[in-house]
Amino acid sequence: MLVLITYDVNTQTKDGSRRLRKVAKACENVGQRVQNSVFECLLEPAQWVELKDKLLNLADMEKDSLRFYYLGKNWQRRIEHFGSKPSYDPEGPLIV
Amino acid sequence: MLVLITYDVNTQTKDGSRRLRKVAKACENVGQRVQNSVFECLLEPAQWVELKDKLLNLADMEKDSLRFYYLGKNWQRRIEHFGSKPSYDPEGPLIV
Repeated sequence: MLVLITYDVNTQTKDGSRRLRKVAKACENVGQRVQNSVFECLLEPAQWVELKDKLLNLADMEKDSLRFYYLGKNWQRRIEHFGSKPSYDPEGPLIV
Repeated sequence: MLVLITYDVNTQTKDGSRRLRKVAKACENVGQRVQNSVFECLLEPAQWVELKDKLLNLADMEKDSLRFYYLGKNWQRRIEHFGSKPSYDPEGPLIV
């Protein structure tokens, strides 16, 4: 299943910058960054449970915003990309 | 249908900042900003054709990135939100 993760982390404090780095790192480990704070993660359900738990613990629920979009199995037909940073294939090699 | 729009507009130039404002404005007119550069737009197909055309003309395809995610009719079960900026109901009043 493909899960799209978008986040806004409040970086007005040093702690915020640290949270941002950690949230991004957790997503990068298992998914592809497609835009600044937008990740596409092709995951098994168990992997998602783990990542979600990690993200909810890393973020500050008072200051940060996490949004998860469940695109399911037929995600290819749900996504269109235009412009720079050419699209990639989530099922292809992880580009890090 | 619900279309999720995420964008990265390169603002290194004055023209980039202008493009960013216009892209955001075009999305704000018909949708809800849920995060910094993330909009959820509940639209009729004809409205989407118009918005998409507008966005593709506003953005610079060499420098900016536009991603469209088609969440379909049963979008409610595809979205989860945690943290600040409490979720809103795309079918509710447009909060501007």
